[in-house]
Parts: sequence; structure tokens; C-alpha cells
Amino acid sequence: MIPRLSPFKEQTLHNLAAMVSNDTKDVETFYYKQVLDHFNYRPESYNTFDQRYLINFKYWGGANSSAPIFVYLGAESSIDGYPNLIGFMSENAAAFKALLVYIEHRYYGESKPFGSWEEAFKNASTLGYFNSAQALADYAEILIDIKKTLQAQNSPIVVIGGSYGGMLASWFRLKYPHLAIGALASSAPILYFDDITSPNAYMDVVSRDFKEVSETCYETILNSWSEIDKVASQPNGLSILSQRFNTCYPLNQSFELPNYLGEMYTAAAQYNHPPEYPVTMICNGIDEASFGDTILDKIYSGVVAKEGNGTCRFINNSLKYISETYVGWKWQTCSEMVMPFGIGNDTMFPPYPFDLKRFVEKCEKEYDVSPRPHWITTYYGGHNIKLVLQKFGSNIIFSNGLKDPYSSSGVLNDLSDNIVAIHTINGSHCLDILSSKQSDPGWLIEQRKKEVEIIQGWIAQYYIDLGALRGNN
Amino acid sequence: MIPRLSPFKEQTLHNLAAMVSNDTKDVETFYYKQVLDHFNYRPESYNTFDQRYLINFKYWGGANSSAPIFVYLGAESSIDGYPNLIGFMSENAAAFKALLVYIEHRYYGESKPFGSWEEAFKNASTLGYFNSAQALADYAEILIDIKKTLQAQNSPIVVIGGSYGGMLASWFRLKYPHLAIGALASSAPILYFDDITSPNAYMDVVSRDFKEVSETCYETILNSWSEIDKVASQPNGLSILSQRFNTCYPLNQSFELPNYLGEMYTAAAQYNHPPEYPVTMICNGIDEASFGDTILDKIYSGVVAKEGNGTCRFINNSLKYISETYVGWKWQTCSEMVMPFGIGNDTMFPPYPFDLKRFVEKCEKEYDVSPRPHWITTYYGGHNIKLVLQKFGSNIIFSNGLKDPYSSSGVLNDLSDNIVAIHTINGSHCLDILSSKQSDPGWLIEQRKKEVEIIQGWIAQYYIDLGALRGNN
Repeated sequence: MIPRLSPFKEQTLHNLAAMVSNDTKDVETFYYKQVLDHFNYRPESYNTFDQRYLINFKYWGGANSSAPIFVYLGAESSIDGYPNLIGFMSENAAAFKALLVYIEHRYYGESKPFGSWEEAFKNASTLGYFNSAQALADYAEILIDIKKTLQAQNSPIVVIGGSYGGMLASWFRLKYPHLAIGALASSAPILYFDDITSPNAYMDVVSRDFKEVSETCYETILNSWSEIDKVASQPNGLSILSQRFNTCYPLNQSFELPNYLGEMYTAAAQYNHPPEYPVTMICNGIDEASFGDTILDKIYSGVVAKEGNGTCRFINNSLKYISETYVGWKWQTCSEMVMPFGIGNDTMFPPYPFDLKRFVEKCEKEYDVSPRPHWITTYYGGHNIKLVLQKFGSNIIFSNGLKDPYSSSGVLNDLSDNIVAIHTINGSHCLDILSSKQSDPGWLIEQRKKEVEIIQGWIAQYYIDLGALRGNN
Repeated sequence: MIPRLSPFKEQTLHNLAAMVSNDTKDVETFYYKQVLDHFNYRPESYNTFDQRYLINFKYWGGANSSAPIFVYLGAESSIDGYPNLIGFMSENAAAFKALLVYIEHRYYGESKPFGSWEEAFKNASTLGYFNSAQALADYAEILIDIKKTLQAQNSPIVVIGGSYGGMLASWFRLKYPHLAIGALASSAPILYFDDITSPNAYMDVVSRDFKEVSETCYETILNSWSEIDKVASQPNGLSILSQRFNTCYPLNQSFELPNYLGEMYTAAAQYNHPPEYPVTMICNGIDEASFGDTILDKIYSGVVAKEGNGTCRFINNSLKYISETYVGWKWQTCSEMVMPFGIGNDTMFPPYPFDLKRFVEKCEKEYDVSPRPHWITTYYGGHNIKLVLQKFGSNIIFSNGLKDPYSSSGVLNDLSDNIVAIHTINGSHCLDILSSKQSDPGWLIEQRKKEVEIIQGWIAQYYIDLGALRGNN
């Protein structure tokens, strides 16, 4: 039941990526010979790998007019499909005359060091180079190279990212202000580290989302866990549950069904996107069950409402497709991205307090190295963020949707005139940077418009400053 | 003739360190178990070493009053003696009620990874972890630990450094604004990288310093090189020179005497401190030579004026004491701190253009790994610094003395209201942070006073911001 950080459910991504839109044909693929370790000079550190990035030149105004460069900072997945997904870039490219760049994060997609996935993921000795500081340095190297190749020294770069990529975008602006004039950090939970945010915050929001849609739905889910346990502990209980939930393979363990449901609820809350609003779909299913239905009947109705009727359901974890994102992100959370997730006492889930010791032991068992739970706040900060950043840094937008459980550790208030927070009450995870739809509600259109205006302001100011400096020479 | 970056000539340091002042007895020594590699999660990265730091508690107002913490960021030498050397800290500690902390840089002094100097400096495999990004992360870890131990979360930290340490101080403020509210970067040549500054800039200033003191002195030195070459190329020429310059061992190579003289002139310019003003001392020696003296006689008079009469002179490089600073800094310049030094056509030295290829080959031959000449500007910036930092960052003082050849690549103009440059026309390398003397000229007293006032302003503003945030809670 560890929440997924991926900005978009993989299904969604794959569906969208499969749609070859007009933009895809304008996207060219490049590879940069990237150094394995930017912060070390051992002979092995000099090994290189081919890092993939994509460029869409179609809308660019060119180097002579110092036209801007929008850069999507890849996160915990292959970069495939992202030119289609990130509507914020492609839809605004023409107005900004922007070059569009999408860079794949090391260890994902085609950007694997050590020649293969197997080698790269073999053990901590090859995984050790897989972390955010190295990734940011990768982006820096590639952006310098692109600017040099295009002779676009004066073109302002704006970096854009969502979720983990949103953290990367804000951190990139803070660590490499000489390379990016601003950052749009969508749904970036940069405060979900160390002791800054309560470990229970994520699941608190999931529960609140359901409660706000329907109190009875919330109560039904709350009561379902003991009911599932009760049935599961009966003789033949797991077959009864398997039958009731129409599983493709018989359930083997009592935790399998609760895990499946928990993941479905949290995903629904995180990706509670209009016009479907998955939380509402589930609760409608649960609440509209017929008279006389049991709790389990109602819960199953919720599953059907969300996932469709179809054939059998793959509920058992062991049989699920294990994605590259899953494997990669597991390493990242077990090394530096230690986000303490637990479940408090007042949610629709059984309580499950976060236990750092247990977490550390699990990671040590898997990788033979220990997580560094304080590193993110050591390197990037996070404590007293208002005090630190109100007089330091500029040009970052932190955007959030309050239905997104990750918004609990996002930046929701302006830190200064130039480091601003934009949130929507009904928004969810990374909505603002996704492609727009006819059905988009007014508040979402408004949010995107605000973001565009702020970025226009950054670029306009940059041109003024650039002109003034040139004038002085 | 590569200029020395060390903030203080080692002789000076050792002399001063030997004087056990009142402050030394108040300084306590601590060790922090530091991780070998902050940016990697290979099992070997988790090795630790004991990093030394010193604390003087005498003047501190304590955690309850959020009294400030002044931190000297150690550079390319042992931290021994620095509590006495850095008068800027000890002399202002009482007024600020400041805790004084001095942290030793990894690979210097007692802070050697791998258990010994021999192991640490064995080859690139053990030296690879020796770089500025790792050093800054070391400082971050130690400062977090000190604040935690002293329960001094609200005590503002100001970091202070000179020369390479001055670069570290400014970079620390930029990369770790959550840990230091401000930085005093004394004589920090942060623009002596990549193609930002002309490679000839350093030696141009050395020559200018001599020319400003005396045109005839400048001309004598200018003419001396061909004269030395002429004598050296005669049969017995090296013995003639050995005798004339009273060397302890006969000269073996024709470059030995020019190298010695070149180093003496550059050191004199860099450390052209009052009240002696070594450039003036040398030129007085040269200019006051008797009627009928040859050029070589005059040059030798300059040597005597600067170095004293004494016994014989250790001029041959091979016999000189090779310091830890020399060996450590050589690695640093051959890995990331690639500062392109050359000699242009219009100086008092024979021209010697910088040749990156030659530099790289020399380093590769010595260490079997290549320098990364673009890394410093990739990670820390430097190009278009005004454009980048006029709207990003705050609370940095760049101080310089224009007689210091390194001032040619220092920040000499304010970048914004809060990132300011203070330079003195007659100042030299790191003067402002050294202990004050009765003989200090007014402009030096004034420079230090300005710096103190600016830091007072940072701290006062910090307390206001802290109070406002607390009031909001």
C-alpha cells in the first residue's frame, strides 16, 4: 500500500503514448555521452552511457531571437510518450516560440548505464550512481551541450516536471540557476522527507477525498477491512473472496485483497482527474449497491465501477506486471528518496504507523546498503522552507491539486514574490501539465493560464535584464 | 610558475600557528564520522573517515538567544593554526556573541580518508572522492550535526573562507542556503574557470603591481630573463648563476632560477600585505642597486631585499619541501579545479600561453584520469554571473584587494543589493579576514568594518524574519 509516486498511471501513459499524435512526428531522438559519476574522479567514474533526450524543433523561434527552451525533466520512467503527455509544453510552444526538450532520467528507458538493465540493476555497486544529484548534473550537462550546439547561449531555459520530476525541477532551479531561469514544479512533494511532514499525511488525504465525496462510502470502506479479515480467516475463506472478487487466480494470502483495494483507492485519490473523478466513480459504485447487499458486495461494486466489469481480475500481487518504474523507484526510495509513509488512526484504512527501523531493515535486506533518510533535507533543504527561501532564489511555481494526497507535502503558500504556489481545490496529481481536454473544468483552465502568465513574466524580465547588460557593455 | 592558491604563504601560517595565543586554549577539537561519498550508494561509498573540526565556545551567546555561528570553511591545508589566523572571526566573536567553528577540508590535515596519507593519495581510485562538491556536503553534514547537538536550530550560520575557501563559502551559500544565511568570500577567484577570464589575467596583475611600484624595476625584471638565459647557456653558466645567487646546491637546469624568481615575484604580488608590501621591498632592492651593477646583480639585490641576506638559498625545486598543500592542490587542479594560467605578451615575464591540451596530458600522465575543465562552471556557474545572480540568491560578500592577481577573476561589482563586492585598491590576497595589526592602514580597517556591518544586517534581518514566522504560528 505504499503510494505510487509516478506522475501518471502507467496504463494512462501507455494508452496515450500509443496514440501517435501530430507532435510525435516532430520529435527527434538524440543521445548524449553521459559520464557515470559527476562527483567522483575514480577511473570507473569516467565510464559513460548513452542518455536519451528528445527535441521538438517545430515551434522554436531560433537562437537569433533568443527564443526560449522548455525542458521536461524526466522522472521515474522511460521518456517514451512524454511529448504527447505533457500538453503544457506542446500546447504553449507556438505562443512562446519554444524549443521543446524532454530528457530521460538515468537508469530508466534507454538511458541505462552498464549496457543493460540486468547489469545496471545487478546490485548496489552498479545502482549506486542512480540518484537525484547525479540526475540533475546529467540534465545540466545535456542542456549546456544543447545550447552550445544550437548556439543558443541567450535562450532562456524553463524546466518543467511533475511529481518526482517536479521535485527535480524545483531543485534544478535552486542548484543550477545559471542554467534554468525558472521552474514549474507540478505536484512536487518536496516536504515529504525527514520529519517535515507527518508520515500519515498522504493517507489522511486519501481518506478525506473519499469522505468528502460520500460519508457512507467512507464508512463502508472503513468497515470492509475487518469484514475481509473475518471471511479470509474462515475455512475456505480465501476461495470465497476469490469467487466474490472474480480473481483470475485464487488468492493465496489474506493480505492480497486488502492490498489490491488499498492501491486502487489511493490511485483513485491521487489521479482523481476530471471528468471521471475516480473517487466519485468508486463511491457511486459502493453507494448505489442494491438493498440487501453485504459490505463485500458493496466493495465489489466499487471495484466494478472503477475498473469495469470485464473478465477476471488480476488481484494477486505476485502475478502483476512488474514495471521498470516499480523496480527503479524502489531503489530510489531505499537509497535517498526515503519518504516516510504510514497510516494514522483516523482514516478509512487500518492504522499502520511508519517505522523507520523496519523500513531501513527491509532496504538493507534487499540491497545490502542502508538508506540515507536525512540526505534529501541535507542537500536540498526543506525545513523552515519559508524562512530559507523568502529571501533566496526566485522563479519557481509550485502547483498542486488539493485532492492529490501528495499535496500534503507540497508547497501550498507563496514563499516570496517569485517563488509562488498555485493550488486548486479540486485538482489532483500533475493535472496542470497534462494535455488539455474539451471537458476540462474552468478552475483547471484558469490554473494553467496563471502558470503561463507567470512564465511569460519571467521570460520578459529575462529579456529586459539581458538587454540592459548588453547595453552596459 | 603556476600561481599558488593557498590563502597564506605556508611560512606565514606556520609562524603564526606556533604562536600560542589566548584563543588557542579556548579551541576544542572534535571529529565527525564523515561518509566517503555523498553522491553515490555503492557499498564502498559508505566507508567513513574522521573529519576534524574545531570549536571555540568562549564568546557564544547560546542556543536560547539564537546567537550566531561563524564557520570557517577549511581549504587546501590542515586546519591547524586557523583559529589564530582568521582574526575576522576571533576579533568579532565577542560583539556578535558568536560560536566559532573551523572545519578541516577532506584529504588535508587529520581529515584523511582511507586511514593514511599514503592510502588516500595512492592513486585516482582513492583520490576520486577528493573534490569540492564532496567537501561542501561534508560541511553541510557537520553543521547539521553541530546545530542538533547544541540544540541551536535557530542560530544563523555565516560561512567564511579565503581564496579556494572563499569559493567554497560563496558556493556553500548558493548550494546550501538552508544551512548558511550568508557568506563572506574573501579573494575568491570564482571566475578563473573555463573561458570566463583570460588565462593571462593573473600574471597581468602581477606585472602591473610591479610596474605601478617602479617602471625601472619592471624593466629590469623584464630584461633579466634573456640575461639569465644568456649566462645559463654559456659554458659553466649554471655555476656562474649558482654563485651569483648563492644557491645551497648547484643549479642543474636552466629553468630553476627563472622558476624561483617567478614564484617569488608572484608570491610577492599575491601577498603584497602591509606594512611590508613585498613588491615594494623587491623593487627597492632592484632599484637601489649600486652604480655599475649588472642586471643579475640588481635581480639578486631584489632577492636579498625580499628574502634577507642569510646563508645559502634553496633555489632548486627538487630540494624544496613538498607540502601537503602542494600535493593536494595539484590533484584538485588536475581533476576539477582547472584554472587556466598562462602568460601573455605584455608582461614582465616571457610569454607562455596556456595550453589546455598540454595541461590535460600532464595530468593524465600523473593520475591516469583526465581533468574535467568544464565541471566547475557546469555545477557552480560563472558565465554571465550578473545576469544569473542579480535576481537569484542573496547575502554574499565578495571581497578583494586589487593588488592580488586573483582579484582579476573575483567578483568586483555588486551583483544585486544583497550580493555585494567590496574591494580595496591597495589590498592583496585575503587580507580582510586575517588578524588585524596595529600597522593596518585605514582602507583595510574600513573594509573590515563594512563587512561586519553587512553581516550584522543579515543577522538582524534574519531575526526579524524568524520572529515574524513565529508570530504567524
